Amino acid sequence: MISLPLDHSPERCLDRLSFNTATVGNNQEETLHDWPIEKLIDICAEKGFSAITFWRNDLKTGPNLVADRAKSAGLKISGLCRSPFLIGPLASSPTKTNLELRHSLEDAAELGAPALTVCVGGIVPGTKGMEHSFGVLAELLASGAEAASQVGVRLALEPLHPMYAGSRSCVVTTKDAISLMKKINHPAMSIALDVYHIWWDQDLERSVSEIEPGKIEALHLCDWLPNTQDLLLDRGMMGDGVADLPKIRKILYSHGFSGFEEVEIFSANNWWRQDPSTVLETCVNRFLSAC
Amino acid sequence: MISLPLDHSPERCLDRLSFNTATVGNNQEETLHDWPIEKLIDICAEKGFSAITFWRNDLKTGPNLVADRAKSAGLKISGLCRSPFLIGPLASSPTKTNLELRHSLEDAAELGAPALTVCVGGIVPGTKGMEHSFGVLAELLASGAEAASQVGVRLALEPLHPMYAGSRSCVVTTKDAISLMKKINHPAMSIALDVYHIWWDQDLERSVSEIEPGKIEALHLCDWLPNTQDLLLDRGMMGDGVADLPKIRKILYSHGFSGFEEVEIFSANNWWRQDPSTVLETCVNRFLSAC
Repeated sequence: MISLPLDHSPERCLDRLSFNTATVGNNQEETLHDWPIEKLIDICAEKGFSAITFWRNDLKTGPNLVADRAKSAGLKISGLCRSPFLIGPLASSPTKTNLELRHSLEDAAELGAPALTVCVGGIVPGTKGMEHSFGVLAELLASGAEAASQVGVRLALEPLHPMYAGSRSCVVTTKDAISLMKKINHPAMSIALDVYHIWWDQDLERSVSEIEPGKIEALHLCDWLPNTQDLLLDRGMMGDGVADLPKIRKILYSHGFSGFEEVEIFSANNWWRQDPSTVLETCVNRFLSAC
Repeated sequence: MISLPLDHSPERCLDRLSFNTATVGNNQEETLHDWPIEKLIDICAEKGFSAITFWRNDLKTGPNLVADRAKSAGLKISGLCRSPFLIGPLASSPTKTNLELRHSLEDAAELGAPALTVCVGGIVPGTKGMEHSFGVLAELLASGAEAASQVGVRLALEPLHPMYAGSRSCVVTTKDAISLMKKINHPAMSIALDVYHIWWDQDLERSVSEIEPGKIEALHLCDWLPNTQDLLLDRGMMGDGVADLPKIRKILYSHGFSGFEEVEIFSANNWWRQDPSTVLETCVNRFLSAC
């Protein structure tokens, strides 16, 4: 583990490189490609990735079979996406949400994923601002973390971009996520940071310096396109945007980051329309050249 | 001036209420309504507003004539929108930008506006992250502030939402704006805060406490719709969204805010399609009931 400020970008080590299947649209019910998950796993390993993060859609044949295939291909499993929204306008009823969270955790455990990514959801309907929602969240996450620890999985809390604060995540900065994590203070809680959501934050280093080393589950890689066209599905490939990826990586590694670097690109009109082989190859090349 | 923390929301005082003409789409080349600016001014005063902020599109008959009409109607002039983008992918050449900035300042001076709103523009093309752009900006704003002071106008620096960081404004938080303002340290610089851009920021109070009283030019009022459909033109009317308007106003007033509260709502599919009388009335009612 690197623990002192670095003069140069940290090494780009394929041993830490993970592929999130959303990068070829597998977070959608219907993908634009026709690769079964087995093929995606095999080619992912062939192209140089060392790990893979699945979405629950990928597990239709059963988490254990998918896990076996990944292991046979030589891939580690870096995570499972994702929890249901816990609160906000897009969340189901508390009973349904709780049930789905528990099923997600069971899937993660059966898959052998170290963590389930949590997108908390937006502001509680009928309330204003963050305060009330954070109070509700702290309780839900505490009980979620307890459930997670019972099946040997961590909850990786991911702050999303402030543009989702109303709908998908009222946790919008690294600092927000840390403050919640400290409040909950449960060993099964960790943080996932995503370049897309945090690249603009000039307080990133200060925030990261307050995270206990080892508590950053993963760094999600992509880029922010300056002419972003869509609130959700127009992320850029590393190197195609304006995020300072070397600087962000340096900040994390300087503060003891030792998790996976996971490529995750939602791109309905570009990367999802390309051949998955091309996407996988481009991700590896860009990790080596633009990060 | 109120200088101690308040127990309740600050008074909603129509003497401080301003109307930004973009709320009926006057920031566009073509509006969806057919009111000449003279009519908008008169009905604005009639509905209870005390001040008005114009866009340069409103000044086609000449800033002095528009100013005279506003004064005759009993309205103060609270500002002029806006500077050209100074940097980033949407900025013109430096020469053109400089010329347009100077013309904007002359318009503001002739109009008798206390300030010209500045939207700085996004990341300098070919660069990554904020650092380089902030350096360039500091120089441009320093020379802009000097030009502004020569015509008796302030530059009101407005941080925009982080979703615009690549394109429209790399100054994305109140803290960013303060840090730039401190660096420039020119009496002609002030800050404009807009609910739409800052409502999600849990560090708002800490940041505002670092602004010298009197340096907040205006608070722009609107709301954040939880189901926001568009990156630019889907702002909500006060009360229709999830921003905690009373809390934001309380933070500002507790720290000595004494500027205008200015309603500014870009809403291509809702408010811009309604009769301007209805819009003006709704703004006043919502200011009194939901702020």
